[in-house]
Amino acid sequence: MLTSRHEKYLRELFPGEGSLFTPEEKLIFGTDASRLSRQPWAVVRPESREQIVELLRWAEAEKMPLFTRGRATNVVGGAVPDKGGVVVSMLRMNRIKEISAEDFVAVVEPGVINGDLQKELKKRRLFYPPDPASAAFSTIGGNVAMGAGGMRAVKYGVTRDYVLGVEAVLPGGRVMRLGGRCHKNVAGLDLARLFVGSEGSLGVMTELTLKLLPLPEATASLLAGFGTLDAALDAARAVFGCGTLPTAMEFMAGLVLEAIAGEGEAPWPQGTQAALLLRIDGSESTVAEDLRRLEAVFKRHDPTCLLTGRGQEEEPLWELRRLINPASFRIAPDKISDDVTVPRGKVGEAVKRFQALGRERNLKMLLFGHLGDGNLHVNIMHDASNPDELARARQTKEDVLRVTIELGGTLSGEHGVGLTKLPYLHWQIGEAERALMRDVKKAFDPSGILNPGKGY
Amino acid sequence: MLTSRHEKYLRELFPGEGSLFTPEEKLIFGTDASRLSRQPWAVVRPESREQIVELLRWAEAEKMPLFTRGRATNVVGGAVPDKGGVVVSMLRMNRIKEISAEDFVAVVEPGVINGDLQKELKKRRLFYPPDPASAAFSTIGGNVAMGAGGMRAVKYGVTRDYVLGVEAVLPGGRVMRLGGRCHKNVAGLDLARLFVGSEGSLGVMTELTLKLLPLPEATASLLAGFGTLDAALDAARAVFGCGTLPTAMEFMAGLVLEAIAGEGEAPWPQGTQAALLLRIDGSESTVAEDLRRLEAVFKRHDPTCLLTGRGQEEEPLWELRRLINPASFRIAPDKISDDVTVPRGKVGEAVKRFQALGRERNLKMLLFGHLGDGNLHVNIMHDASNPDELARARQTKEDVLRVTIELGGTLSGEHGVGLTKLPYLHWQIGEAERALMRDVKKAFDPSGILNPGKGY
Repeated sequence: MLTSRHEKYLRELFPGEGSLFTPEEKLIFGTDASRLSRQPWAVVRPESREQIVELLRWAEAEKMPLFTRGRATNVVGGAVPDKGGVVVSMLRMNRIKEISAEDFVAVVEPGVINGDLQKELKKRRLFYPPDPASAAFSTIGGNVAMGAGGMRAVKYGVTRDYVLGVEAVLPGGRVMRLGGRCHKNVAGLDLARLFVGSEGSLGVMTELTLKLLPLPEATASLLAGFGTLDAALDAARAVFGCGTLPTAMEFMAGLVLEAIAGEGEAPWPQGTQAALLLRIDGSESTVAEDLRRLEAVFKRHDPTCLLTGRGQEEEPLWELRRLINPASFRIAPDKISDDVTVPRGKVGEAVKRFQALGRERNLKMLLFGHLGDGNLHVNIMHDASNPDELARARQTKEDVLRVTIELGGTLSGEHGVGLTKLPYLHWQIGEAERALMRDVKKAFDPSGILNPGKGY
Repeated sequence: MLTSRHEKYLRELFPGEGSLFTPEEKLIFGTDASRLSRQPWAVVRPESREQIVELLRWAEAEKMPLFTRGRATNVVGGAVPDKGGVVVSMLRMNRIKEISAEDFVAVVEPGVINGDLQKELKKRRLFYPPDPASAAFSTIGGNVAMGAGGMRAVKYGVTRDYVLGVEAVLPGGRVMRLGGRCHKNVAGLDLARLFVGSEGSLGVMTELTLKLLPLPEATASLLAGFGTLDAALDAARAVFGCGTLPTAMEFMAGLVLEAIAGEGEAPWPQGTQAALLLRIDGSESTVAEDLRRLEAVFKRHDPTCLLTGRGQEEEPLWELRRLINPASFRIAPDKISDDVTVPRGKVGEAVKRFQALGRERNLKMLLFGHLGDGNLHVNIMHDASNPDELARARQTKEDVLRVTIELGGTLSGEHGVGLTKLPYLHWQIGEAERALMRDVKKAFDPSGILNPGKGY
């Protein structure tokens, strides 16, 4: 409960619009992209580390739960203040403090939007590879907290591979400067990277130092359709054997292709059961070479269609993929989405078993995702106003998770655990390991006030 | 102290040559490549996880210090049992349990030699990028424990970027299975990667799951000499701006070139003050393209020599770099080596300041290293039989570390902290951060029996 003394304290520390208390003002801070919702007791919007230090000192003394968030694009309820407490919105701490083309690092506050950073970097011919689908509106702080993935992971890895340094404030107001700005650094335990994917449970991050690469000079893309799922998987295998590592290798199966075709003109003929969409990057000349090579690989696998593009010509190919979400609503009004991930070689089996689950329960399954990482987006389409159908969809979600674990996979490749996957986490991670995670958390947050009840 | 009861217990758990107690047998297990030495009370050589579980149960009950090691190529004393206790040699657990070309993972026991794994992978056209200089004889377990780096880090990152899963036994005999075999995985706190660089302080690792890439089809190398340090640094900067990211970018300065020339024929003319040695990889055709591009870049920077090679022709270029160590002993009989790392843009300033430190104290400094990561190997040459010179060398080492910190660098880019860097760690990492590291350790090792007094 927030007492009037608490409210007075927060109003003084965060004057004016820096703190919010009315239901209208707090409304949007109670939910995230999971659509779960619970009203927080208050919302604060810090503008400086000093305010956060004081807030954390107070919160520890008062045992006040804190729920830190960026743009709340989180789909697993990770940003929902479901236990009651104070939401800490980091959106006012959105300065790009430094971009160093000499050191190949960027130093940012956590509220910086991924896409805004990308734009600034591009001007300087620099590159921060992690590109979650939400990049245009999600924050770097949120990306780090949830361990965001994205399409470029095949070649470049994920968020955790690009976090060099973390400044964070811990309960009690302890400021920790972890890691640094060197691309190689093995001094001390690697606590900076422990923050990646920690879901706001260890501290409030106030500054992030990111590793940058030179911006590749050129890119190219290829789209290939196949008459069977197995033909597509064979072609994907051949790509990994051909000596050219793609930046991204996306995958769309059966029903997804039909749905996109329903939105307008699609390049694949009827009967196409699976499509691969690849991007490559490098210098102008090497991209041209690699493109020829990949075209040759695909031609050997009987594609139903094969399109390539360079530079501006790539956009129409990727536009097709972006149609998945709007097109999905032609199939059913509601969906349960998951980002399960299986070992790369198990993708074919996973797709077939997920499709079979849909048939068993008479539900349409949209299957697409980051084939290169085994990261599948499974959309279980249904009409939630039909209680029987909703129940079947929910059962199917559990079956999808169960099959994923059976195949040696993980419940989450890039979305995190948050609230919605927590009930299933024990299927994947043993009690001893989870107890160890909670013990580690205690070193950071002894009273358990940071995003309690989430993640592990 | 090891009682006769302890000895009896260990002999039963590790029968025959599985446990060693005589000074002769224990001798080599008391030291590592740091040349520091202390005799352990006993050495055990487990062959199974079950033995390790029982050992850790016993060690926790008896509060017996354990010092886990692989091939002890560690140069910072990380493997030295300096407090007395039992050395756990992992060399008998050296099975490659699985190489999956479908999942792009290898599952290995920690005693597997990095180079042996590389050879097996090459047969299957797979690739594990981390390549510490010790790769031919150091173990994967040691590489992970110390967070090994290597030359390919410019393009591919370091050991921590390739560890997907860790099985480890904790004090008390608790078996933890952390991470997994998916390339993307954000379920729970990322404790698997916390083991990378933990210097044997968190648990005894019994199995590692590593991320693999397709083996690049082709490589090529370039060696360029320059008349000044600044010209070499300008050329390096131009490489990072040219659209081709090299796999490795090595650097050798002044005296190193003279010393190598003293070993035989060197390709650089007199007056060459710095040299860059690069490797690139990709498909046959893209490597040819990239090689042409890099040659053009270097030609614009007035090289004193420029050599290129592809495939077998590359070896003579890299042979020159391998001569650094033997050649160094032409300069002085002893050296103090360090692997300090600075932000990439600070390499020039660091080299100049290190060279000045040598001049001030009348000592020869060999400077070379992984320019692409800012990771410099500084060898302070001296004659240790001359007490005054030894004292000056030791003072210079401290100055090198101090300058590194001033430049925003880290005391260790890839060797670790161990014993030898621990006295200086507070120059880089604050007391609050180190206390947090020790608190995190307590969650794994509450009694502090694992490699006590090392690392942080």
